[in-house]
Amino acid sequence: MTYSNEKLSEEKVFKDPVHRYVHVRDKLIWELIATKEFQRLRRIRQLGTTYVTFHGAEHSRFNHSLGVYEIIRRMVDDIFVDRPMWDSDERLLCLCAALLHDLGHGPFSHSFEKVFHLDHEDFTQSIILGDTEVNSVLKKVGKDFPKKVAEVIAKTYENKLVVSMISSQIDADRMDYLQRDAYYTGVSYGHFDMERILRVMRPQEDQVVIKSSGMHAVEDYIMSRYQMYWQIYFHPVTRSSEVILTKILHRAKKLHETNFSFETKPVHFYSIFNNQVTVKDYLKLDEAVILYYFQAWQEEKDEILSDLCQRFIDRKLFKYVEFNPSKQMMDLMELTTLFKKAGINPDYYLVVDSSSDLPYDFYRPGEEEERLPIHLLMPNGEIRELSRESEIVDSISGKRRTDHKLYFPEDMINHLSSKSTVKKKIKELLNLE
Amino acid sequence: MTYSNEKLSEEKVFKDPVHRYVHVRDKLIWELIATKEFQRLRRIRQLGTTYVTFHGAEHSRFNHSLGVYEIIRRMVDDIFVDRPMWDSDERLLCLCAALLHDLGHGPFSHSFEKVFHLDHEDFTQSIILGDTEVNSVLKKVGKDFPKKVAEVIAKTYENKLVVSMISSQIDADRMDYLQRDAYYTGVSYGHFDMERILRVMRPQEDQVVIKSSGMHAVEDYIMSRYQMYWQIYFHPVTRSSEVILTKILHRAKKLHETNFSFETKPVHFYSIFNNQVTVKDYLKLDEAVILYYFQAWQEEKDEILSDLCQRFIDRKLFKYVEFNPSKQMMDLMELTTLFKKAGINPDYYLVVDSSSDLPYDFYRPGEEEERLPIHLLMPNGEIRELSRESEIVDSISGKRRTDHKLYFPEDMINHLSSKSTVKKKIKELLNLE
Amino acid sequence: MTYSNEKLSEEKVFKDPVHRYVHVRDKLIWELIATKEFQRLRRIRQLGTTYVTFHGAEHSRFNHSLGVYEIIRRMVDDIFVDRPMWDSDERLLCLCAALLHDLGHGPFSHSFEKVFHLDHEDFTQSIILGDTEVNSVLKKVGKDFPKKVAEVIAKTYENKLVVSMISSQIDADRMDYLQRDAYYTGVSYGHFDMERILRVMRPQEDQVVIKSSGMHAVEDYIMSRYQMYWQIYFHPVTRSSEVILTKILHRAKKLHETNFSFETKPVHFYSIFNNQVTVKDYLKLDEAVILYYFQAWQEEKDEILSDLCQRFIDRKLFKYVEFNPSKQMMDLMELTTLFKKAGINPDYYLVVDSSSDLPYDFYRPGEEEERLPIHLLMPNGEIRELSRESEIVDSISGKRRTDHKLYFPEDMINHLSSKSTVKKKIKELLNLE
Amino acid sequence: MTYSNEKLSEEKVFKDPVHRYVHVRDKLIWELIATKEFQRLRRIRQLGTTYVTFHGAEHSRFNHSLGVYEIIRRMVDDIFVDRPMWDSDERLLCLCAALLHDLGHGPFSHSFEKVFHLDHEDFTQSIILGDTEVNSVLKKVGKDFPKKVAEVIAKTYENKLVVSMISSQIDADRMDYLQRDAYYTGVSYGHFDMERILRVMRPQEDQVVIKSSGMHAVEDYIMSRYQMYWQIYFHPVTRSSEVILTKILHRAKKLHETNFSFETKPVHFYSIFNNQVTVKDYLKLDEAVILYYFQAWQEEKDEILSDLCQRFIDRKLFKYVEFNPSKQMMDLMELTTLFKKAGINPDYYLVVDSSSDLPYDFYRPGEEEERLPIHLLMPNGEIRELSRESEIVDSISGKRRTDHKLYFPEDMINHLSSKSTVKKKIKELLNLE
Repeated sequence: MTYSNEKLSEEKVFKDPVHRYVHVRDKLIWELIATKEFQRLRRIRQLGTTYVTFHGAEHSRFNHSLGVYEIIRRMVDDIFVDRPMWDSDERLLCLCAALLHDLGHGPFSHSFEKVFHLDHEDFTQSIILGDTEVNSVLKKVGKDFPKKVAEVIAKTYENKLVVSMISSQIDADRMDYLQRDAYYTGVSYGHFDMERILRVMRPQEDQVVIKSSGMHAVEDYIMSRYQMYWQIYFHPVTRSSEVILTKILHRAKKLHETNFSFETKPVHFYSIFNNQVTVKDYLKLDEAVILYYFQAWQEEKDEILSDLCQRFIDRKLFKYVEFNPSKQMMDLMELTTLFKKAGINPDYYLVVDSSSDLPYDFYRPGEEEERLPIHLLMPNGEIRELSRESEIVDSISGKRRTDHKLYFPEDMINHLSSKSTVKKKIKELLNLE
Repeated sequence: MTYSNEKLSEEKVFKDPVHRYVHVRDKLIWELIATKEFQRLRRIRQLGTTYVTFHGAEHSRFNHSLGVYEIIRRMVDDIFVDRPMWDSDERLLCLCAALLHDLGHGPFSHSFEKVFHLDHEDFTQSIILGDTEVNSVLKKVGKDFPKKVAEVIAKTYENKLVVSMISSQIDADRMDYLQRDAYYTGVSYGHFDMERILRVMRPQEDQVVIKSSGMHAVEDYIMSRYQMYWQIYFHPVTRSSEVILTKILHRAKKLHETNFSFETKPVHFYSIFNNQVTVKDYLKLDEAVILYYFQAWQEEKDEILSDLCQRFIDRKLFKYVEFNPSKQMMDLMELTTLFKKAGINPDYYLVVDSSSDLPYDFYRPGEEEERLPIHLLMPNGEIRELSRESEIVDSISGKRRTDHKLYFPEDMINHLSSKSTVKKKIKELLNLE
Repeated sequence: MTYSNEKLSEEKVFKDPVHRYVHVRDKLIWELIATKEFQRLRRIRQLGTTYVTFHGAEHSRFNHSLGVYEIIRRMVDDIFVDRPMWDSDERLLCLCAALLHDLGHGPFSHSFEKVFHLDHEDFTQSIILGDTEVNSVLKKVGKDFPKKVAEVIAKTYENKLVVSMISSQIDADRMDYLQRDAYYTGVSYGHFDMERILRVMRPQEDQVVIKSSGMHAVEDYIMSRYQMYWQIYFHPVTRSSEVILTKILHRAKKLHETNFSFETKPVHFYSIFNNQVTVKDYLKLDEAVILYYFQAWQEEKDEILSDLCQRFIDRKLFKYVEFNPSKQMMDLMELTTLFKKAGINPDYYLVVDSSSDLPYDFYRPGEEEERLPIHLLMPNGEIRELSRESEIVDSISGKRRTDHKLYFPEDMINHLSSKSTVKKKIKELLNLE
Repeated sequence: MTYSNEKLSEEKVFKDPVHRYVHVRDKLIWELIATKEFQRLRRIRQLGTTYVTFHGAEHSRFNHSLGVYEIIRRMVDDIFVDRPMWDSDERLLCLCAALLHDLGHGPFSHSFEKVFHLDHEDFTQSIILGDTEVNSVLKKVGKDFPKKVAEVIAKTYENKLVVSMISSQIDADRMDYLQRDAYYTGVSYGHFDMERILRVMRPQEDQVVIKSSGMHAVEDYIMSRYQMYWQIYFHPVTRSSEVILTKILHRAKKLHETNFSFETKPVHFYSIFNNQVTVKDYLKLDEAVILYYFQAWQEEKDEILSDLCQRFIDRKLFKYVEFNPSKQMMDLMELTTLFKKAGINPDYYLVVDSSSDLPYDFYRPGEEEERLPIHLLMPNGEIRELSRESEIVDSISGKRRTDHKLYFPEDMINHLSSKSTVKKKIKELLNLE
């Protein structure tokens, strides 16, 4: 028997609040879960700083990764098995890619990537292909198996059906996170009928399609996704904590570059600051490490770093107002000047943050982000793009929605001398009181 | 208007998966939640290392504290209000005590307390009464208000009705954590009808009693509690990670005492090692800090510390077998000798762990732990102790159940030379293979 | 103390799967529930024949009526109480109107109303104002109280705020039935965050408005409603059983008019057939009575009546195909001729059924059905119509969707002689095989 | 291909609130569900008159029968398949027996059986073996297949493993109804972890056993069952309506025997009254028919029949007091005399009703009701009876609990002349006021 067929003597299960149980029978999967790189995902939260808004959102990427694996397992073992277009040789590859698709995420990925121009997808590739426990386990299947897993996650694998299971507008990744994030935050938006969607998924040559009888479940899924983005993922309070986090990273880098003498030296950040991160360095970073530094840096002598860290640790966040870039740029410039006059550094304390989402899109060849649309399988065997069949999806298809907010520390403004005309002008421009 | 009556201009809510929403109208409560001491509870998990067994159990004590507050809020605002025995002057005191009852918990409390002889209840007292943000907020109500809050939590407050709401065999604390821990782990055991129990709770002179029509809901609650203890809280895999955690702390302390030269110095631990912890030191400890050290200590030169930290971080846990102290003490002594011969230090690698629970007890005056029994209010106005009315509770009342397990690193034993008779004997005694 | 203020000595509760508990403190409400006219609603299903498609949908209008009452109770007792625009004198009136709003529903209302030109709303009025137990109870409050209750339900009551609580595009009626019907059928579509919607409802002079911070919950509610209509209420299999039911009623009436000699005489139908129904007659009709007749009529000598009743009782339904009235009228006429040739009476066995829904509409003065739009209360106090704020609602607003299906007994067609060219032509036109 | 192997071209599903979906792939099962005898179960409620207490409990036996089928389907298709002790030739037999196990239930079975000495199990046998659609469908598998199905349900089938799946102390029947009845009533008691129990069920030679690792889930199931019996099934208000129902049947029979001239003749009851029921007669009985008679009989001239029917239809129930047969028989006799004096017929208006339950029992050979105990499969392969391993089960094992109540029409007693000493004495004995 080859390693790829080896089963555990007894099926193992993980109790999971979203899928009830996650089932593992393959020895390979069991060993991947036990690797230190996969266990590290326990120390990285699925939703970054969302917990400051929704206190239940403290779940880790470990959670979500198991969930995506379980959805793919159900697809391949319950739904696709024995169907003509399905090649069962791809089974294990799908399971591995599902389990490992987020392996390269670092702490508070979103902010780290923005500040340091890192890409978690690159790290996923490097971890799978590098000198890691994950790589050793995958190699037991075959010398080129790690490469195949990496390709599926990078969407370059030749079998596009396999790619679409993990990455498309209705993939296992999204189906898991919408439900999971809804469960942990406690909001009612994330409900849709995944059982139904799974049951009507059909493997085709180059993609998964949905039997048209399941169209309404898909509509419901797209609406869920829409609501989750605007209600949870883009919540303005969460963005406030991300703004602060981003500014801490900027400040620390700046101080490092200007040879500031840290009480607690940013040892774990050196290679990032210097743009020379290795996989080994990267794997040492997790959210516990970051929080350790932020806590320690509350006591640094640099007032900005110390203040921002206190805000982050003690949740003393920035306030925000709506901001309209096409009308209010002059106001922003004036505010920048006023902040400087008031001694509040606008580089760190006056921040525009924008969120933008496209709830569903049909295929637009050649555009920046080519999205694979959702296709329906009609009773007559024809394949039709979703928005042509669903009025409700059509009505939102291709419509990007963007939201801009201006963040600032209201408490600092309130502490300005009340005689100051600067204070008065700032308050007027920000519509305070 | 006095501060104790001040309301927020608009009610604030927290989305909570267990109670749907947590409602805050009192300015005092809002300000307590915003204190840094309360925000620190976000960095301390409710269930310690349980997440290694139930991956969903990543929720913090912040979560639970809000939940207990919300239950008490419903009691005082919906159920008790206007009832003859209820003194509405105690309302705010109850809310504060509920919110703050776990304030003194440190990281992985259970293990820390065992190793360093700390007591989280003492720290709760010190934080409420010391020079803290929480204390400042409480003092706005009145000079002696912090003391009253501390007394309720310490169970020494004169109004025993108030004490029993927070601490009894059916208090808001337990009702929240059973449901919450069940929700996050995803197990079905924690369900009981809290709505019903709240509806039938009645304030009496010195305790909360339950109208007898709600007896079955209470039975169900007690069974829930029983199952949660044995299925979740005492799960042997979780205990394995706690054993390792405990041994890391022992080892670090020992090394410190023997002037070991740490690469990463245990700065945050010094005052604990020296038995001189101040509130200020204590508040700097959270689970991020601990995990930072454990991660760093994987690379210390001391093999035991390094190995134990790797086990903890990468979840390479000890295995276990059942252990019967009354029959197997000789075996344990023999194993201790064999481990030494094999070069495996039994002080760190051969550990008996015991768990014990009394699911419900009636009052036993003079005993070590005097438990307040649950009392029913009969239709004729009589008060009767629960186990006299409920056959099912009577059948388990006062029966302590204890479980002992022996933990050890199976991998180390497997790595012993297979020629060694020591290895063979160890395996025999531990029933391996 | 007047009757309108009389409270029960102890609050009564009904265990309800949707709202957990329905709470009754007012003596008036308790006595209304105990009337025979209200108890009769237990024998009328909420969703007519939907149970043939979704077997869980066996719940009665009694269920739903309690649910609407409970939602209104929460509005008036928890949300509106003490708000400036709210007149607490209207409290009891709201509760009664909520409880009794569906009192005039008869068995399988939809079909009965269509065939016999009855109107359940007229009967609701007549029962509340007539010589009934309900009327006697209401009159205890005041001589004109029944009239006021009837007016609220008829939407003619002068206080439009009160009317809008019971009847609008986001009223207690809809909020209950969407959730309740979803619960009993088991579908996931009916979820929306009613807790949130209730919390942000604000009484205004002539309507309930929604604070704009709750807009997303309202969007979700509208999507729920949309899905429930197309997935549940208009399900083509349910419509098949309704088609048969309608045809049974037509046939029985026809036979009665042509003096057919029934084995089981349609005694309970006489006054309906003769268009002379009194309230007393009407109240004797419930679904048990109807099912009794249908079961008995399986054995009537008239083949059509007997066949249709067997189909209804044993669930041998008609099949259906899509039908496009603008293109297929010629086909329908040809089918009608062919059915006659084949000896299958097209008046009973070839039926076009149409369903149509407008998911949300803004106000269109002067139109047939003037719908009150949903209004948002903006932070600046302005009132804005929902579709102007919500892109997603705007995208479906005012768009009517209609679906036509053609129903027929496939089994009868299959039983035609296979030599028959009629059979062949029918099958071709219906796209069978 | 034989009929027993024939699959539907596409799997059919029923949306089910308890199991999410009920899956049907076998043509045989699909055809059984379509039979008129099975469809009749839609007109028989699962919980009789429980809906008068828990308004949600309006679900039918059709519901439950599908549910039991689905549980067995999961056992045979997901859990038992390919296990050594499992004979896959028994698969279809199990599915049929599961689906049809309640086929012989009549309207309000419990009361009908008591009054007329009928046995629904006999009718199940007769329907399966008689001249019915069900029998025709089953015979397509083989001439003796109906007999085998009947034997499994009658527990006389030779393969005791198969019997134990449908009928034991932890069978598919109980697991479905506990969850289903909890779902529809809305109570929280019926929750237990069926997923877990199914996963640890193992087929043995003559029974299903449970792997000992699942013991706690079984404990939870037994506690659920205990609570459901006392909270739902034996609820004293439900028993009041059953007492009235029983007395209606007694009265109608008595009137029939004394040649009372009914306005609405009890045609459907003749064969039952005369103890000559055929399967054909029996199948015509359903709850719609019974309710039709009860409604009509409200207007019979016999005052007792008319009064009891009004009580049943309008839910004007009897009140009750606790009754202790060992102490209060003298009181009962005195009350009987007093009722007679007061002109209230005690045969119909003074009724002792007893409920009794044994939550779990080990095997007691030779006793009236030999119950198969639940057996655990220990890690070493040993089989042990549950109560020997579980303290909590041991504590309630074999303990029968019985409850007696005395029912009477309080309103009639209140209407007695207040001068009457009889009234006063009755009230004293019944503890009224």
